[in-house]
This record gives sequence, structure tokens and C-alpha cells, in this order.
Amino acid sequence: MDNLNLPQHTSHRYNEELEDVRNRVLQMGGLVEQQVTNGLKALLEFDSELGEQVLNADHQINAMEVEIDELCTQVLARRQPAASDLRLVVMVIKTITDLERIGDEAEKLGRVSVSLSSQSRRPAYYAELRHLGEHVKAVLRDTLDAFARMDVDAALRTAKQDGDIDREYDSLSRLLISHMMEDPREVRNILEVSWCARALERIGDHANNICEYVVYLVHGKDIRHTQSRSE
Amino acid sequence: MDNLNLPQHTSHRYNEELEDVRNRVLQMGGLVEQQVTNGLKALLEFDSELGEQVLNADHQINAMEVEIDELCTQVLARRQPAASDLRLVVMVIKTITDLERIGDEAEKLGRVSVSLSSQSRRPAYYAELRHLGEHVKAVLRDTLDAFARMDVDAALRTAKQDGDIDREYDSLSRLLISHMMEDPREVRNILEVSWCARALERIGDHANNICEYVVYLVHGKDIRHTQSRSE
Repeated sequence: MDNLNLPQHTSHRYNEELEDVRNRVLQMGGLVEQQVTNGLKALLEFDSELGEQVLNADHQINAMEVEIDELCTQVLARRQPAASDLRLVVMVIKTITDLERIGDEAEKLGRVSVSLSSQSRRPAYYAELRHLGEHVKAVLRDTLDAFARMDVDAALRTAKQDGDIDREYDSLSRLLISHMMEDPREVRNILEVSWCARALERIGDHANNICEYVVYLVHGKDIRHTQSRSE
Repeated sequence: MDNLNLPQHTSHRYNEELEDVRNRVLQMGGLVEQQVTNGLKALLEFDSELGEQVLNADHQINAMEVEIDELCTQVLARRQPAASDLRLVVMVIKTITDLERIGDEAEKLGRVSVSLSSQSRRPAYYAELRHLGEHVKAVLRDTLDAFARMDVDAALRTAKQDGDIDREYDSLSRLLISHMMEDPREVRNILEVSWCARALERIGDHANNICEYVVYLVHGKDIRHTQSRSE
């Protein structure tokens, strides 16, 4: 947390508590990233076993959210943090909501991989879906890095990529619609691809939110609904 | 806030601040509810002017979220609330995130109403969409009532309806898919209906989250990812 220069607290225990909160968010972020990676892999490689694994792991993310929330409330009650410590706790409360929802989107990828596993051949547009998925994964990784290092520049740079993801998603959506119109027998499969693309796009949105919280934490300035979203 | 029995604070100003936070959330909730009502009306009545109005009003909701967030952080810093006051502030920070996202979904309804306004006739399944919309609106109203009165029983009762909304959404989705397969020329229109149904279903999810926060606030017990979602 070099860029933040959090003040050293007279209470050693307090420092440990804040560090604990931060470490748990990073741990939750790691698990969420793993779920997205596995969900996408299960989907693209028709690996319904891995898909099931993603479905079964989601409760861990939910439990971590509840746990970190509780920890934050305790820190607020016992330590009555001020200034950047307070902003850190508020920011964590928001961040874990977005992480949990990224987990929900990853779960959707897992669910589709299970429902598609009975198919004999891949639905169309898997290449495009893979491309979108890799892009979203990279943005998520950069977001969690920016969080870990509390790096505003990296957060702003990463937030800017959300527009690219949205455009990629829009162009894939248009392709999918055309395909459905041309080949109605494929509607059901193409719709599954479309739900997955939507899930990936939403993961990008949540990552964007987290980047904005990093900027808020370090600069004490709320950029939501202003710069990064208007681009 | 009768059911909460918040302690009376020695500082009159502090009481006013907490009351102010609560009132602003109710005000934001009212605006969000209006946006959902208008978005749905614009969509169902082909009123693209009303749809434009919804698009133009969304920034107000965003601004309210940022404002209430800032207010909460100030209260945490200056008043160092404990116990139920602290839970109220944490709960408000979460609630306004969901309200803002309900606003985003309402905006989608407005956007589709504008894009459909050039059509000469209604896409199919408007009756089903209206039914789902009225259900979601009722749940949102009950949610905001439960929040205003901090009524746990009402919150639990309302949260239970989310399962009904999900089922209604699933059955509408199946209808839409069959229709697309039978009449490919309608794919584009039906997909618009499908996005709107999805937006309504997500509004139900966000309302459900808020109900869970009400329970957390009053009981100090976190029911997320447990009771209401497993039903």
C-alpha cells in the first residue's frame, strides 16, 4: 500500500487489523479471478466437470464477502478510523460487493458450460467469445493489481479499457443477432453464447467500479459517473 | 424507524445528520421508483418522449449516490457511530449502490423504448412483459416501504417474492426463445423484449439485496446467501 502512505498507528493491533482486511480482500480477489478463469475455460473447452466445480465454489466467495463485511464493521466500531483508514474500510465494503457479483457472473459461465456439455459441436462465435473473455480476464487482473498496490495511475488506465470491452461486446452481440436471424435452429445455442458475453461484459463493469474505488481511496475524490464512464 | 429504537443521542446535530442520511435514501428510492415506472410505461406505451426523459434523469440518481456516500463517510469520520447507528450507515452505503443499479436498469428500459419507437407495431409478449413489470414494481415499492419503516417482517416477506420473479422471468424467456426459432424475422424485436425482461429481473435482485440489508440492520444478522436466496 506504498502509494497510500497510511499513517502508522500507535496501536500495533489496529495496524494488523487493517492489514488483515486488506489481505482478505486480495484473497477474495484471487478466488474470484480463479472462478472467472475456470468458468471461461469450462465454457470454451466443453469441460462440464470444471463447470460444476465453478458452481460448487461460489459459496466460498459469498462466505468471504459476509466475513469481510463483518470485519469491516468491527473495525469501524472498535477503532473509529479517520481519514485514509476510514476511506479504506468504506472502499473495501464496496469492493467486496463487486467481487461477489463478479463471482456470480463466473458462476453463470460455469452453468452454461454444464448445459452445453450435452451438445455434439461447439456453438458458433467461440473465437470471439474467447477473445472477449481474455480481454476481461486481463482487465480483472490489472484491477486486482491496482488494488493491491493502490496504484491510481494503473486504476485509471484499467478503467479506460471498459469502453473497449463494451464495444467488443456490442459488436459480438450484433454478429449473434444476425446469425440467429439467418439460422433459427441455432437460436438457443447462440443465446447461450450471448448470455456468456453479457456476463463477461458485466465483469468488466464491476472491475471498472473497483478501479474507481481505488482512485477514490487514494485521491479522496469520487470519479464515479464522471471521467471513466463518459469515455 | 420505529422498529429500530435508535438511541437518542446527546448531540442533537448528530440525530439530525442520521435523519438526513435516511431521508436522502428515501428520496433517492422515490426517484429510482419513478424511473422504473416511467421506463416501463415508455416501453409499453411506445412513448419515446418519456423514454428520453428517463435517459436524461439518470444522472440525478448517480449524483445522489455520490452525495449520500460522501455524507456517510463524513458521519463515520465525525461521529464515530457505534452499534445500530454504525450498522445503519454501513447499510446505507450498500443500499444506495443497489438503488443506483436499479436506476441503470430503468435507463435500459428507456433506451429500448426509444429504439423501438420507430416500429410500426408492438413486438410480441407485451402482456407478459407488463405482468413481470408490474410484479417487479410492486416488489420495489414494498422494499422501499420496508426500508422506510425498517420493518424486518415486511423485508423477509418481500425478499421471498424474488423467487416468483425469477420463475416468471424464466418462463417468459422460454416463450421468447421458442418464438425466435419459429419466426426469425422477429429475432431483433424479441431480443429487445428479452433485454427488458432481464432488466426487470435484475431490479428484483437488487430489491432483494436491499431487503436483506434491512434484516441485517434490524437483527444485526447477515442473511445474505442463506435463507432468502436458497428458496
